[in-house]
Amino acid sequence: MGKRIVLALGGNALGKNLPEQMKAVKKTASAIVDLIEEGDELVIVHGNGPQVGMIQDAMTELVRSDPVSHIPCPLSVCVAMSQGYIGYDLQNALREEMLDRGIGKGVATVLTQVEVDPEDPAFAKPTKPIGSFMTKDEAMRMVEERQYDVMEDAGRGWRRVVASPQPVSIVEIDTIRSLVETDHIVVACGGGGIPVFKTGGHHLKGAAAVIDKDFAAERLAEEVDADTLIILTAVEKAAIHFGKPDQKNLDSLTVEEAQHYCEEGEFAPGSMLPKVQACMKFAASKPGRTALITLLEKARDGISGKTGTRITA
Amino acid sequence: MGKRIVLALGGNALGKNLPEQMKAVKKTASAIVDLIEEGDELVIVHGNGPQVGMIQDAMTELVRSDPVSHIPCPLSVCVAMSQGYIGYDLQNALREEMLDRGIGKGVATVLTQVEVDPEDPAFAKPTKPIGSFMTKDEAMRMVEERQYDVMEDAGRGWRRVVASPQPVSIVEIDTIRSLVETDHIVVACGGGGIPVFKTGGHHLKGAAAVIDKDFAAERLAEEVDADTLIILTAVEKAAIHFGKPDQKNLDSLTVEEAQHYCEEGEFAPGSMLPKVQACMKFAASKPGRTALITLLEKARDGISGKTGTRITA
Repeated sequence: MGKRIVLALGGNALGKNLPEQMKAVKKTASAIVDLIEEGDELVIVHGNGPQVGMIQDAMTELVRSDPVSHIPCPLSVCVAMSQGYIGYDLQNALREEMLDRGIGKGVATVLTQVEVDPEDPAFAKPTKPIGSFMTKDEAMRMVEERQYDVMEDAGRGWRRVVASPQPVSIVEIDTIRSLVETDHIVVACGGGGIPVFKTGGHHLKGAAAVIDKDFAAERLAEEVDADTLIILTAVEKAAIHFGKPDQKNLDSLTVEEAQHYCEEGEFAPGSMLPKVQACMKFAASKPGRTALITLLEKARDGISGKTGTRITA
Repeated sequence: MGKRIVLALGGNALGKNLPEQMKAVKKTASAIVDLIEEGDELVIVHGNGPQVGMIQDAMTELVRSDPVSHIPCPLSVCVAMSQGYIGYDLQNALREEMLDRGIGKGVATVLTQVEVDPEDPAFAKPTKPIGSFMTKDEAMRMVEERQYDVMEDAGRGWRRVVASPQPVSIVEIDTIRSLVETDHIVVACGGGGIPVFKTGGHHLKGAAAVIDKDFAAERLAEEVDADTLIILTAVEKAAIHFGKPDQKNLDSLTVEEAQHYCEEGEFAPGSMLPKVQACMKFAASKPGRTALITLLEKARDGISGKTGTRITA
């Protein structure tokens, strides 16, 4: 029988702009429908780095063109827009690819909020760059006018940086479960989810943050009781001594072995490290759960054990 | 027992900009949860006029600021973004209001595409203004560079105009049905839906159009087999001789009577006329179906027969 799989798609699966996205989602859909053909249940989480940056830049330009009529758009709203933007193309490409292969499943994008903790230490130290480069003067004006955090990026200019807190829970989890259980392919937690925190009573307030999509996918995989978490990235396997003559690709790891390599600094922060950490967390969360890191094009081979890096308890 | 209701919300229920929307959705949520408390199943369709205009303007400013990196954003993509933007605030306000009243139902925004007919006569004669005013020079440049249709608006300047075709079918109807049947409040067909048409095989292509949200709500009400279609607007009742000394508010109408008044020109095109037409279509579609036009604040009284204009077969 099929597995229940949560799949995290990186930015490279989506392209950097409108025409690239249209093309990229076709290839992505083809690889995903390979898994659906195997009878697996799929929930898809995607990144939104370039897309939410583009939307934030557009909203900034709008305010600049007419500061009387418009106010700056909160980042959480930009994330919501990016879920609409990406979900539309992705669900369409999946629908088309499934119908082309005679599969009549529904595909749905669920606008998803993800709760974060206002006390998360990430809020004290924003590190995630977002949007386009600015001159120092522009950056300082954004600090003054909008209380943005900014950072210089290795001589290339200044950028806004925001916090990247851990996901605590997925607000629309019942919706996602209902759709999986009625045989839908679900796109959820786009861009890591719209970051919100509780502010007393039942009120949720948007947070100026972006949640790492791999950690959001891990959280979601636990909450929908998935069998497998697949994190798709730009390499076929995780490796130690990466980029060195003695690079060693990893076929399988226990959580303990992975922890050891993390402590040795084998995985790059902001790149392979969070992916391995998300996989470790999922594999350790319940007996029988498996996590896999591989290339988009290798997803089917990875799931059948032929390639990729597999992390188990 | 409760009814299955499709509710169409006008722009006045959403506000014209970010802070207005945050406030407006609270009041809107309160009126909607009044219905949910009665045990009714609700699917909510909202307009997006000011919101999709704002997004289109922002994307235009982005291209203007950096024409090398960006291309104009298709209107269908702007509609998709507006579904994310509005759905986020609306589902949040509904969730909060329900929880405050001890109702534990899920609330979900479904990114919805609505198929239109490329042969729809509306494409030959775009009439729906969108986005901000332009000078004549700007308008002519948009005609040349982007093949926009433009129109002068009664001395106030030039605006882009797009087609407003009739909805043919709702692509994500199975998703909406699944969620209604698993006890969710569903926000769907936002802004009338992302307009798409078939281009051979199973491929759907975005259309440069906006679908009237009242007609989209009517189509949706038929497809989810609703009992009642409620169109909320800025007046408590539809009227004949509107704005004249002998104005007569209408409590109930048969489809035949409504048709007669439409032919007499009693209802303003682009305003009350499409609402009455959508109601007539729904009431005529199956025995026992009822349509209602009233104020947001009067929705509960309307449904219990105390006010509003009721249209039946």
